[in-house]
Amino acid sequence: MRIVIALGGNALGNSPQEQLALVKKTAKAIVDIIDEGHEIIIAHGNGPQVGMINLAMEQVNMPFPECGAMSQGYIGYHLQNALKNELNERKSDRNVIALITQVEVDLKDQAFDHPTKPIGAFVSKEEAEVLSKQKGFTYIEDSGRGYRRVVASPKPIDIVEKKVIQDSIESGHIVISCGGGGIPVVNEAGKYRGVAAVIDKDFASSKLAELVDADMLCILTAVDYVSLHFNTAAQVDLKTITATRLRKHIQEGHFAKGSMLPKVEAALQFVTRKQARRAVIGNLEKALEAIKGNQGTIIINEEEEV
Amino acid sequence: MRIVIALGGNALGNSPQEQLALVKKTAKAIVDIIDEGHEIIIAHGNGPQVGMINLAMEQVNMPFPECGAMSQGYIGYHLQNALKNELNERKSDRNVIALITQVEVDLKDQAFDHPTKPIGAFVSKEEAEVLSKQKGFTYIEDSGRGYRRVVASPKPIDIVEKKVIQDSIESGHIVISCGGGGIPVVNEAGKYRGVAAVIDKDFASSKLAELVDADMLCILTAVDYVSLHFNTAAQVDLKTITATRLRKHIQEGHFAKGSMLPKVEAALQFVTRKQARRAVIGNLEKALEAIKGNQGTIIINEEEEV
Repeated sequence: MRIVIALGGNALGNSPQEQLALVKKTAKAIVDIIDEGHEIIIAHGNGPQVGMINLAMEQVNMPFPECGAMSQGYIGYHLQNALKNELNERKSDRNVIALITQVEVDLKDQAFDHPTKPIGAFVSKEEAEVLSKQKGFTYIEDSGRGYRRVVASPKPIDIVEKKVIQDSIESGHIVISCGGGGIPVVNEAGKYRGVAAVIDKDFASSKLAELVDADMLCILTAVDYVSLHFNTAAQVDLKTITATRLRKHIQEGHFAKGSMLPKVEAALQFVTRKQARRAVIGNLEKALEAIKGNQGTIIINEEEEV
Repeated sequence: MRIVIALGGNALGNSPQEQLALVKKTAKAIVDIIDEGHEIIIAHGNGPQVGMINLAMEQVNMPFPECGAMSQGYIGYHLQNALKNELNERKSDRNVIALITQVEVDLKDQAFDHPTKPIGAFVSKEEAEVLSKQKGFTYIEDSGRGYRRVVASPKPIDIVEKKVIQDSIESGHIVISCGGGGIPVVNEAGKYRGVAAVIDKDFASSKLAELVDADMLCILTAVDYVSLHFNTAAQVDLKTITATRLRKHIQEGHFAKGSMLPKVEAALQFVTRKQARRAVIGNLEKALEAIKGNQGTIIINEEEEV
């Protein structure tokens, strides 16, 4: 199978040292899947990392898309290094390619009217007012700790490097791309221009899976299953579920915004656009079993329902 | 021809805004060469950029190899974006791939005994003493302005991602790799580990050209020619020169350390290892003419001398 794996924050770490240790475990889990003969394309988040980079680089006025590009370099290097080392350990001569990825968004996306993703340092109300005049940034009050710049979280509509990603898969390489959801760019008459935005890495992974015509989208996180009544006595873990039923559960409000909801929506989007596609949402530590269908929540089209 | 182009500091910029403007000009010069039907692989420096990143990221103890990876993301994005935009402008559907590159160095390289490349902030003598005890860093007095950490500048011996670079060229893509000379890693029984070092981008480009079996190594900089008695009344620009004569000029001390000398040595290394190879050192703004042999200093093997 051709599988796009979306790695969440638990696959990486909060400091460079922690990340370097954590990616070794992540690499083992992924190489276990590679060993089964699957084609693997990896996408990953970058929330804490791009936050750290953006904060540190504020002093040199580094624009936000460039900070995203830096996080792709930083995380891509760690993942690429750990995967290659694990492959070498297992006497495999497969190669890993981490590529800088620009992901196209639409300036008409409603998300740009209501930016919601906080980035950068906390500032006072007065500073926020000065900065929004000076730089045109949007600020909101955040968790009672002050004001923070917010950027939009638009949906990905295309991946600029899709052809090179496809060719790298065809060449037999393990591909790392769309880091942090991709560097957000808009297409202005054939010219791509970076914009300050955060693309959800699960939606980017779903778009990636669609564009490379993957058989499976595998969203790995820190929990074993998608659950109803999560974290209550009435919690019910979902095993195999059809798109229609899952949509119903979304409407019932079972899934947390910015956490399980985008994962479920990204999985649905991928599965329902074409027959014979599957998505699985499961635990990174049980990744191989999730791919095999023994673990995690499997999302299928109605027609395939058993 | 298959051509490795090494871009110097004048192809990029000192601030994000300056760089974004400058890479557009660089992209035009490179696409002019692509339009002639050549296969292009681009390597680039990162001196000012990794310096800026390392300084800003000191507060979170970001290791130096990771800063190099970030600079590859940052510069790779700008170059990739500008090249794709220029290709689109010319109605070409060619694709650009910027890939994170680890370059292997040898811990036995004598450079590690005598680190010379200053990185990071200036500190006082007392701070330098504390930091070298705490972190094991080496500090030297730098240009009368205080003490700075120095790292080694070892020679590149291999490129971990050489196979993916080769396949990307074969797929017809324009490849950006070995940014900043590559992320320096050592090979410890099949496990690559990042080390704090600066690999000269000209030597990395020469190694890259060798590994992809390029026909030409093209080192682009801010001057038109390699010159004897540079910047004096007696200045003589070198047009076509054999390896033996160029070596003689090196011994005569004509070329500045850390400036023209590594370019000349990298060119020599590439040319003399195999027949029918050429290197050219010339001006970025006259890149196409340099490739055509009408501009710049062309370095050839003796046997081919006219």
